[in-house]
Amino acid sequence: MAKSIYLDNNATTPLESDVLNAITSALSKAWGNPSSSHTQGIEAKAIIEESRQHVAAMLGAKASDIIFNSGGTEGNNMILHTAVKYFHSGQDWSHNGFPDKEHLPHFITSNLEHDAVKLVLEHFAEEGIASVTFVPASPKTGHVMVDDVIAAIRPSTCMISIMLANNETGIIQPVKEMFERVKQINTSRKTIPKILLHTDAAQAIGKILVSVQDLGADYLTIVGHKFYGPRIGAIYVKDLGSSKEVPLYPMFYGGGQERNYRPGTENTAMIAGLGQASKLVTENIDKYNRHMEKVRDYLEERLKAEFGEEICFNGRIGKSCRIPNTCNMSLLSVDCSGSEVLSHCTHVQASVGAACHAQNRPSPILLALDIEEDVARRAIRLSVGRETTQEDIDCAVNDLKQAVEKIQSKNTCISAQRVE
Amino acid sequence: MAKSIYLDNNATTPLESDVLNAITSALSKAWGNPSSSHTQGIEAKAIIEESRQHVAAMLGAKASDIIFNSGGTEGNNMILHTAVKYFHSGQDWSHNGFPDKEHLPHFITSNLEHDAVKLVLEHFAEEGIASVTFVPASPKTGHVMVDDVIAAIRPSTCMISIMLANNETGIIQPVKEMFERVKQINTSRKTIPKILLHTDAAQAIGKILVSVQDLGADYLTIVGHKFYGPRIGAIYVKDLGSSKEVPLYPMFYGGGQERNYRPGTENTAMIAGLGQASKLVTENIDKYNRHMEKVRDYLEERLKAEFGEEICFNGRIGKSCRIPNTCNMSLLSVDCSGSEVLSHCTHVQASVGAACHAQNRPSPILLALDIEEDVARRAIRLSVGRETTQEDIDCAVNDLKQAVEKIQSKNTCISAQRVE
Ligand SMILES: Cc1ncc(COP(=O)(O)O)c(C=O)c1O
Ligand SMILES: Cc1ncc(COP(=O)(O)O)c(C=O)c1O
Repeated sequence: MAKSIYLDNNATTPLESDVLNAITSALSKAWGNPSSSHTQGIEAKAIIEESRQHVAAMLGAKASDIIFNSGGTEGNNMILHTAVKYFHSGQDWSHNGFPDKEHLPHFITSNLEHDAVKLVLEHFAEEGIASVTFVPASPKTGHVMVDDVIAAIRPSTCMISIMLANNETGIIQPVKEMFERVKQINTSRKTIPKILLHTDAAQAIGKILVSVQDLGADYLTIVGHKFYGPRIGAIYVKDLGSSKEVPLYPMFYGGGQERNYRPGTENTAMIAGLGQASKLVTENIDKYNRHMEKVRDYLEERLKAEFGEEICFNGRIGKSCRIPNTCNMSLLSVDCSGSEVLSHCTHVQASVGAACHAQNRPSPILLALDIEEDVARRAIRLSVGRETTQEDIDCAVNDLKQAVEKIQSKNTCISAQRVE
Repeated sequence: MAKSIYLDNNATTPLESDVLNAITSALSKAWGNPSSSHTQGIEAKAIIEESRQHVAAMLGAKASDIIFNSGGTEGNNMILHTAVKYFHSGQDWSHNGFPDKEHLPHFITSNLEHDAVKLVLEHFAEEGIASVTFVPASPKTGHVMVDDVIAAIRPSTCMISIMLANNETGIIQPVKEMFERVKQINTSRKTIPKILLHTDAAQAIGKILVSVQDLGADYLTIVGHKFYGPRIGAIYVKDLGSSKEVPLYPMFYGGGQERNYRPGTENTAMIAGLGQASKLVTENIDKYNRHMEKVRDYLEERLKAEFGEEICFNGRIGKSCRIPNTCNMSLLSVDCSGSEVLSHCTHVQASVGAACHAQNRPSPILLALDIEEDVARRAIRLSVGRETTQEDIDCAVNDLKQAVEKIQSKNTCISAQRVE
C-alpha cells in the first residue's frame, strides 16, 4: 500500500498516544457511573473533574466555567439557543421598548462560519425565531471587519457569534478587538439586552494560544478532535460557576449531570481524553505552533517553487494572520476541480474544504471572499499537523505534481483523439 | 483492598472486552473524519455503517432506521421534541378542529419514567409548550395500566411515551398491548394527529429480547452503557429510510451527518463499540437473560433465607414480569435508609435507585407505587450482571448481613449509653 501523507488536520486529527492511553485506561478502569456514590462512581467523577481542570487551564478559564458535551455542533447549537432564551427572559426589553419589527432576538455573525453556526442561524431566521445579519467578510482581509460588525448592531441584538479561525482559509478573525468594542457598547445598553459574545474556537485551539480572558469571550466552543483529542467537546461560559451575568440554558433535560446544563451519563473515557489533549496543548502550544508554521511555510515555498505562476494561495490575503497549519491553494495549470486533482494523488490525503460539505461545488467560503469561481473550484486545503515532516511535504508536493501531470497527459490524449 | 461486588448494573455496566477492543482499534486506526472522501474517511464511514447494521439487527430493525447520538438523554429529548414539531406541522389539525384548550400538543406518559423523559415533559408543561398527562402506575401491578393510558387520550394527543422496563423496580410495562390498542385508535384519527409511540428501552436491551416489530414502536431509545457498551446511544425511528409516516426533527443543525438528523462529526470509535455491544446482545441474549435470572433469583432466595420476615421485595408486585437482573428490596430489621446500609458494606457496590438521583430521599418511583415511605426509604437496588456469580451473591448477602449487624450493635451501644 502506498504511504499516505495526511494533510487534512483541519477535518480531524489522530489521537495523541497520551490521549489514547487516558481513554483506554478510563474505559477499562473508570467505567462506573459518575453519579454513583460507591467507589466505582467516585473514581469516575474524580477523572471528570480533573479533566475539567485541564480544559480550563488550556484556556485560562476556571474549571467551573467548563461544561462537557458531545462536540462542537452541540456546543454551537446550545450557545445560540441560549441567546434566544436570554432575549425572551428579559422582561424589561422584550415587552416594552422595542419597535415592532424588533420583537425578535437579533444575531450578528459572519458569512464565513461553519455550518454548525450558519445553519442554526438560518434555521432561526426561517422559522421566525430570530433575525440574523450575516456580515460579509472583506475580500481585502479575508475576515470580517470590526466596523462592519459594530454597524450591524441593533437594539435587539442579543449575540455576536464569530469564529476565531476559519476552517478553510485558516484566517484568524479580529475577535478580541471586536469583543472589546462591543463591551464598551454594552456599558450603555441598560434597557436593552447586553450583547453576548461567542467565538467558535474549533480551529484555533491547539494551533495558536487561545485565552478566554485575552479574547474577552462570554462563550467559546471547544472541539476535541481538532486538537488530537476525542470526538467530544465542551463549552466555556464566563463565570458560570459564580455570577449569573452570562446565562446558559440547557437543551436537554434529564438526570442533572453537568449541573443540569447538560444532563446524560457522562462519557468519562472521552472526557479523560479531552482533559489529556488539553493538558498537552497547555504544555506544548508554542512547540506545536512553531512546528506547524515551519512545515506549512515550507510547504508553500515548495509549492511555489514547483508551480510558479500556476498556483494561487487562497488564504494569503493582505496582511491577515492565519493559524499556522493551513494552506489553501488552487492549481491553475489544469482545468479541473481540486477534488479531481486529489483523486489523482497517490499519497496525499486532503480535502477541498469542510469535510462535511459536498466536494464538487466551489467552496462558499472562498466565493464569499470574492475568489473567482474558477479558482475556488480548484481549491485544495492542505492542513499539516504535529507529526508532519519536511520529507512528508517533499513527497506531497511531488505527488501533487505527478497528479497534475497525469491529468495533463490524459487531457492531451483526449485532445489528440479529438483531432484525429 | 476489599473485593468489590458490583451490583449496580442498572446504573451502568463495564465494557465487554470485545467492545473495548472495537473501540480502541477504531480510536487508533479509524480516526479519519467519516465525511472525508480519502481512505482515512472511507474506512471510518464503513465502520459506522457496519455498526448501524448491528444495532438494527439487535432490534429487528432496518439499518436506515437507526440514528446515532450521544446517549439516552439526548435520544429521549429529541423524540419528545419531534412530537411537538410534528403536532405543529399538521395544518389540518393545528389550525382548525381543536377546541381552544387543545391548541397545545398533548403527551401521555407514566409516573415511573426516568428523568430524561419526566423532566422534559414537565419542562414542556411549565413553558406552555405542551400539556402532559402523567398516568399513575397501578400499585397492584407496579406498572401503568393499558386502559388508563387509553382513557387519557385526547384529540390533541400526539405522543405516548412509556418506558419498556423500569430502572428501579425492573418491572416490564405492557408496551406491546398498549401500542396495539393505540394503533387501532389511530386508524380512525383522520383529521387529528395520529398518536406517535415511543418507548425508552434503556433498561430492557441486553436483558430481555427487544423487537421493534413485536412492540410496534415508532420510536425506541437505545443506551449503550446499560448493555456493556460505550457512553453513546441511538434511536430507532420506524421506516425513517423509506416512508415519512413517522417524523423526525433534528435538535441540532450543522454539517449534515446522520442524514441531517444528528449533525456533528461522528464519534466513530464509540459507534464501533455500540455496534459490537449490539452484536453480542443479538448473539447471546438468551444466555444473558438466563444467567442473570438465575443469579438474581438465587440472590432473592438467599436474602429471604437470611432476613426472613425482615425483608420486603419492592419489585415483586402481583404477577408482573421483571427484567431478569433487578432486585429492589428493603431491609426492615434496622431503622435506617438504604444508603446508610450500603455505606456499612465492605464489598457490595449498589445504589438505592437511579444513580442520578439524590440518595437520601425515598425513591419517588417506589412512592408512586404506594410503597410506604418507611419501606421506600430503606430500599436498595441490587442489579446483577453478566459476570455476577453465585459466590458473589453469597459474599454480597453476607456483607449486607454484617452491615445490618454493625448498625444494630452501634444502635445498641447508643441506647446502652443513653440508659446509663
Ligand atoms: C430508563 C432510562 N432512560 C434513560 C436513561 C438515560 O441515559 P443516559 O444518562 O446515558 O443519557 C437511563 C439511565 O441513566 C435510564 O435508566
Ligand atoms: C469551525 C468549526 N466549528 C465547528 C465544527 C463542528 O465540530 P463537530 O463536527 O465535531 O461537531 C467544526 C468541524 O467540523 C469546525 O471546523
